[in-house]
Amino acid sequence: MFKHRTQVRVRYGETDRMGYVYYGNYPLYYEVGRVEALRALGLSYRKMEDELMVFMPVMSLQVKYVRPCFYDEVLDLETSIPQIPGDIIQFNTDIIKGDGKLANRGLVTLCFVDKNTNKRVQIPQQIIDVLKEYFI
Amino acid sequence: MFKHRTQVRVRYGETDRMGYVYYGNYPLYYEVGRVEALRALGLSYRKMEDELMVFMPVMSLQVKYVRPCFYDEVLDLETSIPQIPGDIIQFNTDIIKGDGKLANRGLVTLCFVDKNTNKRVQIPQQIIDVLKEYFI
Amino acid sequence: MFKHRTQVRVRYGETDRMGYVYYGNYPLYYEVGRVEALRALGLSYRKMEDELMVFMPVMSLQVKYVRPCFYDEVLDLETSIPQIPGDIIQFNTDIIKGDGKLANRGLVTLCFVDKNTNKRVQIPQQIIDVLKEYFI
Amino acid sequence: MFKHRTQVRVRYGETDRMGYVYYGNYPLYYEVGRVEALRALGLSYRKMEDELMVFMPVMSLQVKYVRPCFYDEVLDLETSIPQIPGDIIQFNTDIIKGDGKLANRGLVTLCFVDKNTNKRVQIPQQIIDVLKEYFI
Repeated sequence: MFKHRTQVRVRYGETDRMGYVYYGNYPLYYEVGRVEALRALGLSYRKMEDELMVFMPVMSLQVKYVRPCFYDEVLDLETSIPQIPGDIIQFNTDIIKGDGKLANRGLVTLCFVDKNTNKRVQIPQQIIDVLKEYFI
Repeated sequence: MFKHRTQVRVRYGETDRMGYVYYGNYPLYYEVGRVEALRALGLSYRKMEDELMVFMPVMSLQVKYVRPCFYDEVLDLETSIPQIPGDIIQFNTDIIKGDGKLANRGLVTLCFVDKNTNKRVQIPQQIIDVLKEYFI
Repeated sequence: MFKHRTQVRVRYGETDRMGYVYYGNYPLYYEVGRVEALRALGLSYRKMEDELMVFMPVMSLQVKYVRPCFYDEVLDLETSIPQIPGDIIQFNTDIIKGDGKLANRGLVTLCFVDKNTNKRVQIPQQIIDVLKEYFI
Repeated sequence: MFKHRTQVRVRYGETDRMGYVYYGNYPLYYEVGRVEALRALGLSYRKMEDELMVFMPVMSLQVKYVRPCFYDEVLDLETSIPQIPGDIIQFNTDIIKGDGKLANRGLVTLCFVDKNTNKRVQIPQQIIDVLKEYFI
């Protein structure tokens, strides 16, 4: 399994009148988590779109809100790819508070779409190549 | 089962560079759907917070992205409460495109928290009272 | 001068921990105001992009925050085009609270860019045609 | 004059269908710029709210959009406090692209409000104390 860790700091604009991070803002954090995970693998999501001409639309999302997150907190984003991807790829992001407690968990499933034909395609070989060593 | 229908129009700022509604913006639409569903029942979520002193934090969220939504589309939000709520309440929102096709489905599970004690509480009687007639 | 009025209701996700509409969310409301103003003139901003192949990037923005706006408030967006547009177009949006008091004022200046060449162009004749009767 | 520099990387969710950072997302970046500027001065905006019981609502905002910003770009936020604050404080944030060119400039004017009375107050002495050495 591949695992990667990065951080975000909660912005004021991401909180709501309850004083919590708005429930709809966690997907932004998962996005940061998976883009940085890919970058750590030597893959740029931007280049995938611009050079490989492949989009990765989200197919499904599952979120568990365990503990609220607050303004100005620094959160650890622990992103893993739980299984070897095929025509879909999954990213699990655990959001961990400063005291080590789990705040939130998001599981995002994405597929691959050719930018020109707008049709679903298999995962680019380039991604398989960098990932396979983690799944032996 | 209680069911309610309202609409949103996709804002430019809700799209992303793919030209789709960003996957993290759907929870905003579910929020509109459930707040208007409650209003149709004679319940104001704002008053619940300000007068009943009860928050409703989200506990979990499940999203299925079936078809992309685009800028300026008018979307139907069909929100239902699939089962009689107890210490949690669930809202399912189907997002329907102009041609009647399902674009997106979100299931949101919320609980009830006392604003003063910050502890979980049972569902306010007032909500049970208005909902029970739909679940006979 | 051309003037148009529409409404938005403040979403929970648009508030911040201060309980106010986050200062960065007003531009979303101005967008709603000007897109609906254009629609009232028979102009679809989406069609401008998709058929006239013209983008309207924002060049400058000036905001005055007069009174805070709160969750669930219904706000009037009073959008006007203060002067006959040339190579730029300006939209002024006054955001009015239920009691008639001014909450916020935003002045947005946009230009016109050809989608193919990515160069600035003059205002499309179609817009001039519908606007000129308001500026005699 | 006090000057501080930090960075943000553009998130996918911050772009729009034009492929640019949405014009309404820049205030989020100014927020990051000024909060990190305050932190560099030894001031925590969160503590100001929670301990000094002072809010800083935004009174006005002026933005100049000079060059578009794109997905995944790393942007320098160069935030300065152009003049010694009194009952208001101003932050200017220049957003600089990787090639050193100015992308965007935002001038944000804030005031100070007592959380308990909800009335405007003078700038907290603590902020004056740390800032005054930069304005001799």
